[in-house]
Amino acid sequence: MKLYDFERAPNARRVRMFAAEKGIDLDLVSVDLGVREQMGEAYKAVNPRQQVPALLLDDGTLITESVAICRYLDEIKPEPTLFGTGALGKAKVEMWHRRMELEGMQPTAEAVRNSIEFFANRALAGPLDFEQIPALAERGLKRIDLFHELLEEHLTDNRYVAGEDFSIADIAGLIAIDFGKLVKKRVGGETPHLKRWYDEVSVRPSALA
Amino acid sequence: MKLYDFERAPNARRVRMFAAEKGIDLDLVSVDLGVREQMGEAYKAVNPRQQVPALLLDDGTLITESVAICRYLDEIKPEPTLFGTGALGKAKVEMWHRRMELEGMQPTAEAVRNSIEFFANRALAGPLDFEQIPALAERGLKRIDLFHELLEEHLTDNRYVAGEDFSIADIAGLIAIDFGKLVKKRVGGETPHLKRWYDEVSVRPSALA
Repeated sequence: MKLYDFERAPNARRVRMFAAEKGIDLDLVSVDLGVREQMGEAYKAVNPRQQVPALLLDDGTLITESVAICRYLDEIKPEPTLFGTGALGKAKVEMWHRRMELEGMQPTAEAVRNSIEFFANRALAGPLDFEQIPALAERGLKRIDLFHELLEEHLTDNRYVAGEDFSIADIAGLIAIDFGKLVKKRVGGETPHLKRWYDEVSVRPSALA
Repeated sequence: MKLYDFERAPNARRVRMFAAEKGIDLDLVSVDLGVREQMGEAYKAVNPRQQVPALLLDDGTLITESVAICRYLDEIKPEPTLFGTGALGKAKVEMWHRRMELEGMQPTAEAVRNSIEFFANRALAGPLDFEQIPALAERGLKRIDLFHELLEEHLTDNRYVAGEDFSIADIAGLIAIDFGKLVKKRVGGETPHLKRWYDEVSVRPSALA
């Protein structure tokens, strides 16, 4: 299995961290988004959607979309559990994972891609160019603050995002927060419960994968 | 189990359609978004996030996020399979479901909520008001066209969105397309393969749930 990857890409990091938690070694192939290598013909032939991450199986099947790759890895190596246990446990992980994505990763991506010079004309990933929308960047910044507030409140009574156990929701939450550093949003002393959780998940070996 | 619901809300329809495919009867409680009932104190006490759908279990547990509700329903009644079978089958459904969401439902919601008068100041669901961003509506409209093109190409060789079997990806795809009617985007003769699929899934009894 080869993972087409880029070290600084948040969605690629989600998959690397998930795989590290599972103890799955992936053969990493770096696609240098820093020089727009994903837009070249060579990578287009691998993944016509021109995004990373993408998992190429030994039989030539390509799986794209970070969470779809994580699901695949979870199916081939169910332990440790990162998608929850039992009907309610799985629903809870899905619910909190979605919140980390919809209220964390998505607004952060909007803030970053619609404001930073590197993403000029590249406000969305993929084969087509889209202009930056400054109002969307501004809304994203406000929503990152709300996201930190949401987590601060929630983590007052919960060790991890989905409750007692570390899960894929923590991975998405951590990566959303780290992604926000690009627009100068950081976790600090004013959100002590969030900071407790952030410090704890940041030192897991998988966070460096 | 009670599902807090609103007939015209696309995300609520996703859950109703999923439950209908599973043969699960839900006790529907309508929250009239047409008069902003979700913003009132009564519903806030049920769901502080002030969104529908929300599933209230008999023990008082609340599950929000449409797909989390679907996962719960899938766990309590695994057949018929709507999330795919086997490692690769599940990954494929997740991948295509994500595409239906990220490239279909999301741009459509952006087009609708950032342009229609009813959503003035309500560009995002939830407790807080956000102003409409006209440029985001415009981008959404372009991306709906791209979404139709994506499906037209994909459905040339595939009976359903995730391949041979009907899945949750078809539900999200259908509902995204129907949601686009609010901004006058319709499936027609210029995309015959998409139309073949659209006509087929639209007449499933669950599509009327």
